[in-house]
Amino acid sequence: MSTNLTQYFKDKRDQHLAELTEWLSIPSISALSEHKSDTLKGAQWIADQLEKIGMENIKLHPTDGHPVVYADWLHAEGKPTVLIYGHYDVQPVDPLHLWETPPFEPAIRDNKIFARGATDDKGQTFMHVKALQALMDTDGELPVNVKFLIEGEEEIGSVNLPDFVEKNQELLSADVIVISDTGMQEKGKPAICYGLRGLAGIQIDVKGAKGDLHSGLYGGAVQNALHALVRLLDSFRDDNGVIQVDRFYDKVEGLTDEEKAAYENLQFSDDELKKELAVTELAGEKGYTTLERMWVRPTLEINGMWGGFQGEGIKTVLPNEAHAKITCRLVPDQDPDEIVELLTSHVHAHTPPGVTVNVTPFDKGAPYVTPYDHPAIQAAGRSYEKIYGVPTQYIRGGGSIPIVATFDQLLQKPIVLMGFGLPGENFHAPNEHFHLENFDQGLLVIADYYNELSKAFKK
Amino acid sequence: MSTNLTQYFKDKRDQHLAELTEWLSIPSISALSEHKSDTLKGAQWIADQLEKIGMENIKLHPTDGHPVVYADWLHAEGKPTVLIYGHYDVQPVDPLHLWETPPFEPAIRDNKIFARGATDDKGQTFMHVKALQALMDTDGELPVNVKFLIEGEEEIGSVNLPDFVEKNQELLSADVIVISDTGMQEKGKPAICYGLRGLAGIQIDVKGAKGDLHSGLYGGAVQNALHALVRLLDSFRDDNGVIQVDRFYDKVEGLTDEEKAAYENLQFSDDELKKELAVTELAGEKGYTTLERMWVRPTLEINGMWGGFQGEGIKTVLPNEAHAKITCRLVPDQDPDEIVELLTSHVHAHTPPGVTVNVTPFDKGAPYVTPYDHPAIQAAGRSYEKIYGVPTQYIRGGGSIPIVATFDQLLQKPIVLMGFGLPGENFHAPNEHFHLENFDQGLLVIADYYNELSKAFKK
Repeated sequence: MSTNLTQYFKDKRDQHLAELTEWLSIPSISALSEHKSDTLKGAQWIADQLEKIGMENIKLHPTDGHPVVYADWLHAEGKPTVLIYGHYDVQPVDPLHLWETPPFEPAIRDNKIFARGATDDKGQTFMHVKALQALMDTDGELPVNVKFLIEGEEEIGSVNLPDFVEKNQELLSADVIVISDTGMQEKGKPAICYGLRGLAGIQIDVKGAKGDLHSGLYGGAVQNALHALVRLLDSFRDDNGVIQVDRFYDKVEGLTDEEKAAYENLQFSDDELKKELAVTELAGEKGYTTLERMWVRPTLEINGMWGGFQGEGIKTVLPNEAHAKITCRLVPDQDPDEIVELLTSHVHAHTPPGVTVNVTPFDKGAPYVTPYDHPAIQAAGRSYEKIYGVPTQYIRGGGSIPIVATFDQLLQKPIVLMGFGLPGENFHAPNEHFHLENFDQGLLVIADYYNELSKAFKK
Repeated sequence: MSTNLTQYFKDKRDQHLAELTEWLSIPSISALSEHKSDTLKGAQWIADQLEKIGMENIKLHPTDGHPVVYADWLHAEGKPTVLIYGHYDVQPVDPLHLWETPPFEPAIRDNKIFARGATDDKGQTFMHVKALQALMDTDGELPVNVKFLIEGEEEIGSVNLPDFVEKNQELLSADVIVISDTGMQEKGKPAICYGLRGLAGIQIDVKGAKGDLHSGLYGGAVQNALHALVRLLDSFRDDNGVIQVDRFYDKVEGLTDEEKAAYENLQFSDDELKKELAVTELAGEKGYTTLERMWVRPTLEINGMWGGFQGEGIKTVLPNEAHAKITCRLVPDQDPDEIVELLTSHVHAHTPPGVTVNVTPFDKGAPYVTPYDHPAIQAAGRSYEKIYGVPTQYIRGGGSIPIVATFDQLLQKPIVLMGFGLPGENFHAPNEHFHLENFDQGLLVIADYYNELSKAFKK
């Protein structure tokens, strides 16, 4: 079969890339209201694809935000059912001027496809569709039962999906959940992610005097909102990178010795990361390795900050407003709701005199970790090994897929995080791209995995 | 004469306000290159006015930036010569949405004229033109010789004026320099300013990794440019508002007991300032009164700060760039060049690891203070008292008119700062306005002053 499929994907490659280009051209930015209809177009496009490859019961389920795309094919009697999750929404694209080619005009250079959403997550979701189409085309049927759940709010914290999952547990019931929205360890080294950090964050809005003031006339007399914000933000971490929010670390699980050893075996190179990011030194919480800081330690980052005059030249204003957005990556067993409360208390306890502060929470996601010896996960590891010819690594991921924790809690089935992204592919940054060798090999891995699952995993 | 002039200004009031409205409608924002031709229009408008009232030798002298408008009338034989300084450029107008009426569509409400430049400085410069025209119209000649020097770069630190003054000392030679670009103490209380703070500032540009990063994938591993900037900015002042830049206060002169007593006599009210600015408390350097903090103590203020995601909602980015603009108000005998050096050293000494920082100095102005018992200054005090019917106050100002120190050094003549602005008129902020009762009374004060000067001040 593998030879057949290799030829099949080779024959269809141009067509596949043309189709993916179509999808990537739709600016389905869920965070920006002016892209609401584009986001809907992104949903409709993938729904049409699912229909083309023979899926059934295709529906755009409305939510309070962007719709959820559902489709299924349930004719593999006695075989396990796979719920495939992906998302059709993408991150905003600013700063736009740093893109070498426009984010929604996909361009192939050096065997990579450059576009917003190329890896995160249109590219990876698309691979599941094409792998299943290949099986359907070559075998006339699928080796497993399949349900697709493709949402449009992953990049804004999957606001409405938990409610949808809770209300549609029967529709979504499955034996295993497969998600391709993570990455490999490095080029040529496939990896399965068995843990993810969660997410919690707030926007901080500082207000001082009734309006902007002349810094000459009033400078020295009244609190500058920017200074107040700077003082407040600086109170969040100490010189060692340790987060100073009271009780922030209370529920953080330590690493087992086994995990520590496994991470050391990965031979992660600080030097290579420095080179990749073009920095002279790495930075972060003292006392932990870089991998530990990225995977198993919580973080607090300012994502944006602004106030006062940003134009060319000088304006001697004493600004009366200042704003910041901060988010934390969370690890088991931190609770996002509790963390938002702790952050809010910290802000109020550290607000300098002479200003008022308003705190608005962002949407949240719980951290997640799962045993990686489950047969569904081990089968995926074998498929990777077959195609890539090297052992599969079992890793944790620093990012958050908020819905993973929800699936874990509500559906209570094994979740297989099969990632095909690579570090440095600029998810969430300008010039996002996807290495096409992982597109090519990934299609084979996914097709093989569904065949393996059909045998290895009894209902 | 005063009765004649009172009637004259009453008769001409509508025409004067219509003319001022014309000038205020020109967006001569010197800081923004897209307003370069508007700034030139602002210069041409006042040059045309000067011609209309009978000034001679009118010329727009080119500089490396915006031109300097010069004009004179030198037929008062044996009488002193007055050099009148003003500026036709204005501050930027953002945030635009906070203006009740557009900044360049002057509107009169409640006997105030609202527009960018209404007080700072078109309104005040215009009053000198109209006061001289009145004298010319009623007496057929002027009581003193007059030279106008109206620049277009005051709001960007008078970049090219010092060079112009240095190269044109003969052209500009005078017995007294008069500037109306400051304010009164409060409504109905005229004031002459005998000291001004200077200005020095820098832009700080922080650069981290080669691009924006995904905060999940890299958060915890690498320096966030925003955190680095926050740490750096927070190092500039301590909890007591004391500036932490090494040697910053070395050359700051203390207040004399006489000055301290004079300030106490002004009966400045913290409560009224709080009310005016709508803040619950004032803030600033501990150990000094509010007036002292505004007039005789140096300051350091962040005027603008930005980096990362500023849009709607959440974007979990780890930004690689962060920017801030800071300026200091300086007092005698601080040297702006030295302060820029000290600020730059402070930045480099306090840059957190993992980022690089670039520092760009802004244009500078020296602080200024002059004895207020000079006859030219005392004559101005008498003219104020005649019109307003209350004693003139001798005050210092927190703002900077960079060129004042230059005039002081190069021309070595008494400088009379006759201000007609009021606190709360929003110079440099949205809804700048000018109280028209000070426009009306100020015209009489200025006309009377030139007559007084003709008698009191022998050549």
